[in-house]
Amino acid sequence: MPRVSFRPGDASVEVPPGTSLLEAATRAGVRVRSDCGGRGACGRCIVHVESGELTRLSTRFDLEEGEDLACRSLVLESDVGVFVPEASREVAEEVTTREVEALPEDSPPPESLLKRIGLELPPPSLEDNVADHDRLLRGLRQWRKGHYEVPVGVLRGLPCVLREVGWKPQVTVTVTPTGGSVLNVGNGRSVRPCVLVVDVGTTALKARLLAPGSKWQASCYNSQISYGPDVITRIIHCQGDEGGLERMQSLVVGDVNRLLAALVRASGLAREDVCAVVASGNTTMIHLLLGLHPIWIRREPYVGCSYHLPPIPAADVGLEVNPQGRLFCLPSVSSYVGGDITAGVLATGLSEEAGLRMLVDLGTNGEIVIGSSEFMMCCSASAGPAFEGEGSASGTRAMPGAIDGVWYEDGVRWRTIDGEPPLGICGSGYIDLLAVLLEQGVVDRTGRFQEGSSDRLHPAEGGARLEYLLVPGEEASGGKDIVLTQGDVENLVRAKGAIYAAATVLLESLELDWSAIENIMLAGGFGDKINVENAVRIGLLPDVERDRIEFVGNTSLEGAMMVASSEDSYAAVEAIARRMTYLELSTHPDYMDEFVAACFLPHTDAEKFPSVSGNGGLRSGASSDRR
Amino acid sequence: MPRVSFRPGDASVEVPPGTSLLEAATRAGVRVRSDCGGRGACGRCIVHVESGELTRLSTRFDLEEGEDLACRSLVLESDVGVFVPEASREVAEEVTTREVEALPEDSPPPESLLKRIGLELPPPSLEDNVADHDRLLRGLRQWRKGHYEVPVGVLRGLPCVLREVGWKPQVTVTVTPTGGSVLNVGNGRSVRPCVLVVDVGTTALKARLLAPGSKWQASCYNSQISYGPDVITRIIHCQGDEGGLERMQSLVVGDVNRLLAALVRASGLAREDVCAVVASGNTTMIHLLLGLHPIWIRREPYVGCSYHLPPIPAADVGLEVNPQGRLFCLPSVSSYVGGDITAGVLATGLSEEAGLRMLVDLGTNGEIVIGSSEFMMCCSASAGPAFEGEGSASGTRAMPGAIDGVWYEDGVRWRTIDGEPPLGICGSGYIDLLAVLLEQGVVDRTGRFQEGSSDRLHPAEGGARLEYLLVPGEEASGGKDIVLTQGDVENLVRAKGAIYAAATVLLESLELDWSAIENIMLAGGFGDKINVENAVRIGLLPDVERDRIEFVGNTSLEGAMMVASSEDSYAAVEAIARRMTYLELSTHPDYMDEFVAACFLPHTDAEKFPSVSGNGGLRSGASSDRR
Repeated sequence: MPRVSFRPGDASVEVPPGTSLLEAATRAGVRVRSDCGGRGACGRCIVHVESGELTRLSTRFDLEEGEDLACRSLVLESDVGVFVPEASREVAEEVTTREVEALPEDSPPPESLLKRIGLELPPPSLEDNVADHDRLLRGLRQWRKGHYEVPVGVLRGLPCVLREVGWKPQVTVTVTPTGGSVLNVGNGRSVRPCVLVVDVGTTALKARLLAPGSKWQASCYNSQISYGPDVITRIIHCQGDEGGLERMQSLVVGDVNRLLAALVRASGLAREDVCAVVASGNTTMIHLLLGLHPIWIRREPYVGCSYHLPPIPAADVGLEVNPQGRLFCLPSVSSYVGGDITAGVLATGLSEEAGLRMLVDLGTNGEIVIGSSEFMMCCSASAGPAFEGEGSASGTRAMPGAIDGVWYEDGVRWRTIDGEPPLGICGSGYIDLLAVLLEQGVVDRTGRFQEGSSDRLHPAEGGARLEYLLVPGEEASGGKDIVLTQGDVENLVRAKGAIYAAATVLLESLELDWSAIENIMLAGGFGDKINVENAVRIGLLPDVERDRIEFVGNTSLEGAMMVASSEDSYAAVEAIARRMTYLELSTHPDYMDEFVAACFLPHTDAEKFPSVSGNGGLRSGASSDRR
Repeated sequence: MPRVSFRPGDASVEVPPGTSLLEAATRAGVRVRSDCGGRGACGRCIVHVESGELTRLSTRFDLEEGEDLACRSLVLESDVGVFVPEASREVAEEVTTREVEALPEDSPPPESLLKRIGLELPPPSLEDNVADHDRLLRGLRQWRKGHYEVPVGVLRGLPCVLREVGWKPQVTVTVTPTGGSVLNVGNGRSVRPCVLVVDVGTTALKARLLAPGSKWQASCYNSQISYGPDVITRIIHCQGDEGGLERMQSLVVGDVNRLLAALVRASGLAREDVCAVVASGNTTMIHLLLGLHPIWIRREPYVGCSYHLPPIPAADVGLEVNPQGRLFCLPSVSSYVGGDITAGVLATGLSEEAGLRMLVDLGTNGEIVIGSSEFMMCCSASAGPAFEGEGSASGTRAMPGAIDGVWYEDGVRWRTIDGEPPLGICGSGYIDLLAVLLEQGVVDRTGRFQEGSSDRLHPAEGGARLEYLLVPGEEASGGKDIVLTQGDVENLVRAKGAIYAAATVLLESLELDWSAIENIMLAGGFGDKINVENAVRIGLLPDVERDRIEFVGNTSLEGAMMVASSEDSYAAVEAIARRMTYLELSTHPDYMDEFVAACFLPHTDAEKFPSVSGNGGLRSGASSDRR
């Protein structure tokens, strides 16, 4: 079979003739950027073919001499040498770890899904000669009544362990309302049971270890990104391609394993210590993590394989934790309201309070929940990944070096996470930047750049459209200009329009208006903080009293942490999922009208945004809101 | 590493220096006979070293020139060539299949642990858009209320399967009292669910498939035999040797897989059709099948790892059935009263009738149960494998060619199973032969051969002791004399003495005597039939009215068949195991006296056997009992 070699680096792979260079790159472990899932639609996967013969499929992009789209170039029978330019490489392949607030060092194991129980069993005698298994169960039932399961993998070593520890074992158990499952029996030093918590986002994964003294949070891009930026392109890949689902699964499982490796290393623990994994994520991400077929998620009537899964052996999925470890996935409500949202409801306590509140989660999709302890209703809007920094010219996930805040003070100013040299713009940065440019008249209310309104506005390379230069390449960490293109603005406007329209339809279907909502909570992984005023200014959030709006951060990870750190929360989030009613927007008669009306800055109907619509200007005193 | 090659055949293996030839043979797949587990105690593993240098450990056996014990010969650094003579080869390596009574062809799937349910699910719509998983569960709960589990391996393919079959799937479920577990969802042709039933004996395994039209029974030796004839030598092997347990497990799992392969081939089924395995066997055999550490079974207070196991994934043990298949093991009562006995109680209905009955199971050990619907008490006696034909000079398991009946009619006559040329003597043949020789005065009441009492009695080769020639080598299928040695008689006397003494102590502990027992049931795998009169004559069974004694065959396999063929029997046999009280004989003050007294033919106290003890002669008319 012909071999494809990639530069820089020394990766290469043998592939059958007819394989695209994009596919070959993925198989070789080379991460070439692609936003369309290899359908020739995004023009991102530009490579230079240095040697060998190929078949080039037609493309609508104007390519320079020597450039090819990796997805449109098919290997024939000869070996091929490929150079992947910087711009086509996926940024930040590696796991990023950050110190976060640590769990207290030397504290007892946290209140957790995992219980560690010190048992003192009576040694067997001729009078009390039950099997070791029964003796262990008797001890557990004396600790707490219930039905306990001991997998055969734990039983195998049980006789030796019980005698080694003199019948005083430390037993690690996951507790359920009716009993539990034994994950480990040891001597107290052999395993220090902890829980890996992971938010499996479409764009990025974020993980923590729930363990004493563990103070690290790790994040990485979702490696599936090379097959497309959103859930739809990933589902299409599972559908069109033999082995596509297995490939998607192995990519995300590999990501979780990399996060795990980084966290156990940073925390001085071992993989075997990780006896449970709690995963939140949207319905498609959980399907792909488990290898469940997702293709009917995108076809009417939009039905997934499973929304409620009991804990399953982590090894069945390929997670490299304790061989007896269990994987808990947060439950979904529907194909487009997933475990990330039920986690958010859990984390915010929305389902427990009498007052009516709204949760808006801006992931790659946007999901909205309205509810209280009385009822909950939810919907999903195809916002696209603009607010996650994916699919934009200079977008990045929220990581050190991401521009997460922009303001005007004798010019447009910005700052980055951890003060690192600028790498790109993350979600909260885009909200600020768009608001500032709107305020300064650089973009108009339709989202179009106003020629001559700023000396940073210039024609984009090779195109007639304008783009705004935020950071020149020489100041940027990648050496490349950090810009906002006209396409980026359009994406942002469509994304915020989809969210606002969805919220409007959901309110109307309940015969409510914004005044009924005591509290609007904005969640998402776009940064550590968000400027609420700017989110209102662009019309992402409604023009209500600002103290009714709150940024609640990554509630998907927070909710998963709650499940990990309590024996009751898994049952609680299951109940939340069953209580939520889903409103399907894609077939809703009003949605498209509301969406079109919302694709203005802030909205077609300026009266809806009185405080920010006066000639596009600022409310007096608004500048005090800036950071 | 030095290579050891074996003749006849072309097997060879590389082993580290210091490995015994016996171990090398096992690794090379060459089955060399050994009754002591390679401890140099049995003198069975004689081989001829043809080339290479070895270290020979001392031995108490007088070996001929050129003979070596495989277990006492250690490989050094040179390659070794070994010849394994016929007498040192394990007989009948292959699986034997026999036609037995077939389940009705074209019948619906039998009443079984497995249910096959044809569901008609409503297709999803925007109004009814629950996940496929929930839709399946809803259908199952409409069929029958309960909690159903769908493993992730079944979920993965579920969306495609449900749509392929137009929402009318055939669902295979194992049913429990509270719900069940889904093993397969298909189109009705994809899997024809059936159950493999296997009796895992210390000497031999016997298996059937519970499937429509399946009429085959398969049996084979337990490959662990090369490590010793009884459970104790096998346990010692797990204890003394790194990896011993894994080796024992892989041998018996290999045996089950061979039986499975033979049965699915004979029945025209596929491995994937086998969705459940039901295994009975003594406690040690079940431990070794599952890979549970057995070493404390033989140490006071004789405690095993587990006696009650919920169904476990068959794949966890290495059984090559449907990947979702479950393994059900019959429960044990104690370390020495195992699932073979609880199966026997189930099969005979002993636990359900008001009248007091006794079950005597003669496997490699002997186990006895006395009980009724009121109570059950049981014990175990170390009878040794004499009645299974193992450990005797010409012993064989009950298979075509085994001599299973002997009588006197102008000389000693015999017959074989299926009329095949004689291969050796199985359990029922030994009982008859010993009774006939006792009747003819060839052995006396102490079990000693009487010199000059028969022209078939002659000194054993190379020894001063006598042996009885039953079939000369030229008439035997192996070309080797079929004999009864003085050692064989001693083994048989000890075995029957152990059984009789155990029954006596058990009765006395209940303050009962034989008159209280309505029915004595003799079970075991020693043949299809047994001559009850002869069993009484040698003192294996008590001298009571013959119509109170019944031969019930292999009740271990029968009980396992019942579990496989009913959804309630698994719960029933669990309840039986919990109800049985175990009496430990090894520390019982009376047992040894009773054993010594019973090591006569029929017994030291002739008054206990009035009908058969008159001058060692026969009751009149007794010959009509012969077959």
